[in-house]
Amino acid sequence: MFLDNFSVVLVGPKYEGNVGSVARLMKNFGFSSLVLVNPPELDSEARAMAMHGRDVLEKAVTLKSFSELEEKFDVLVATSSVVANDKNHLRTPVLPEHLAGSKEVRGRIALIFGREDIGLSNGEIEACDLLLHIPSNPAYPTLNLSHSVGILLYELSKDVWLGRLKRKKKLQELSGVEKNVLLEKFSALADVVYDRDFDRKLAKKTFRQLVSRAFMSSGEASTLIGVIRKAGERLREKRVKHG
Amino acid sequence: MFLDNFSVVLVGPKYEGNVGSVARLMKNFGFSSLVLVNPPELDSEARAMAMHGRDVLEKAVTLKSFSELEEKFDVLVATSSVVANDKNHLRTPVLPEHLAGSKEVRGRIALIFGREDIGLSNGEIEACDLLLHIPSNPAYPTLNLSHSVGILLYELSKDVWLGRLKRKKKLQELSGVEKNVLLEKFSALADVVYDRDFDRKLAKKTFRQLVSRAFMSSGEASTLIGVIRKAGERLREKRVKHG
Repeated sequence: MFLDNFSVVLVGPKYEGNVGSVARLMKNFGFSSLVLVNPPELDSEARAMAMHGRDVLEKAVTLKSFSELEEKFDVLVATSSVVANDKNHLRTPVLPEHLAGSKEVRGRIALIFGREDIGLSNGEIEACDLLLHIPSNPAYPTLNLSHSVGILLYELSKDVWLGRLKRKKKLQELSGVEKNVLLEKFSALADVVYDRDFDRKLAKKTFRQLVSRAFMSSGEASTLIGVIRKAGERLREKRVKHG
Repeated sequence: MFLDNFSVVLVGPKYEGNVGSVARLMKNFGFSSLVLVNPPELDSEARAMAMHGRDVLEKAVTLKSFSELEEKFDVLVATSSVVANDKNHLRTPVLPEHLAGSKEVRGRIALIFGREDIGLSNGEIEACDLLLHIPSNPAYPTLNLSHSVGILLYELSKDVWLGRLKRKKKLQELSGVEKNVLLEKFSALADVVYDRDFDRKLAKKTFRQLVSRAFMSSGEASTLIGVIRKAGERLREKRVKHG
């Protein structure tokens, strides 16, 4: 599944600023195909909100009616903040992460967002193949239009950008091996520092918990390993001399 | 980990509309504690953007300086769109899903977002315990302030609202058993409809692929099972009569 499979479709957006915000978000997450069904006139405000996503705005395709979407796309995904009971299973929703995680999703996929005030009509939702729902507080589930778009694009592109960060070594999670080296070195240090078993155990347990809570990178771990190893060595030398 | 552990902190926001949008998003995802460091005057635009999140806006706590955060919170989480190389591992980031998935995160946690134009200063980031990065297109990673907030709150609260949907049976994924019943019934139908093994196999394979691509709920599966079972029975009856 590639980001190019997806188009963002705004049906009857009222405010040009929202269209601009969506163009910016698409650029932020690497999407380029924007389709507008009956948009308002796009002027300076849309361009201002689009920021560096202005090219997405300029390449946007405008359609006159919802029904034209069926020809242009293979899969129509409606979005809605309303979730029906399963009895009405025509409205049973899928989640952003389902769509993101599915390796079976193919073809030209339209992510369709409704009007700011009334969303998509029932007829429009029924013309779609999937209904997507962003999990939110049922006491007030109605997200602002561009925020819905942002969250969905984030979820769909997350693995792409995350993969890139990892390849560029800009994000490194602590491997099991490094974690064990770090815990061993600390353990050796605690043994030299304390005489009582109780103190040793408490120190080791505390450190172990901290490490699992600390979201540590390899770089951070090796810095710590260095300090702790050195401290342990120095202390043992001292003991030999004075002991 | 509960949503009440988290506060959203906006440092030096310039536009009151953004503060209002953030209040709305907090309500959308079930967060209530908003802290503003040197905010602009909050007037009608902030209230208009907050929509049903106006109570979050009204209860917001205002601080005069960043340094007051250290007393009020146990963990300070800075957000930044800039990711350094791992060499500078003081800026190695964690991801929204790390924070959401960690069962070790406890206490009063501040999610800190910088100014619309320049973000957080290096000094402010260094005063924090964690640096969080939203994976995005490195060609244009700078998200709008309220969109960053929305994506992070979505990721942190996702499991809470998802769990609620499941308990209310508003979201049902197809279980393995139902999937097998559906495939068996279809298989039986294909055996009656076709004589050639090639046709039977192709039909079964196609249907199996469709089912895995279709994000089917239990309700949908049982409707389909009903139709397919009935069709198979009718066809077998017919064969017996005419055969």
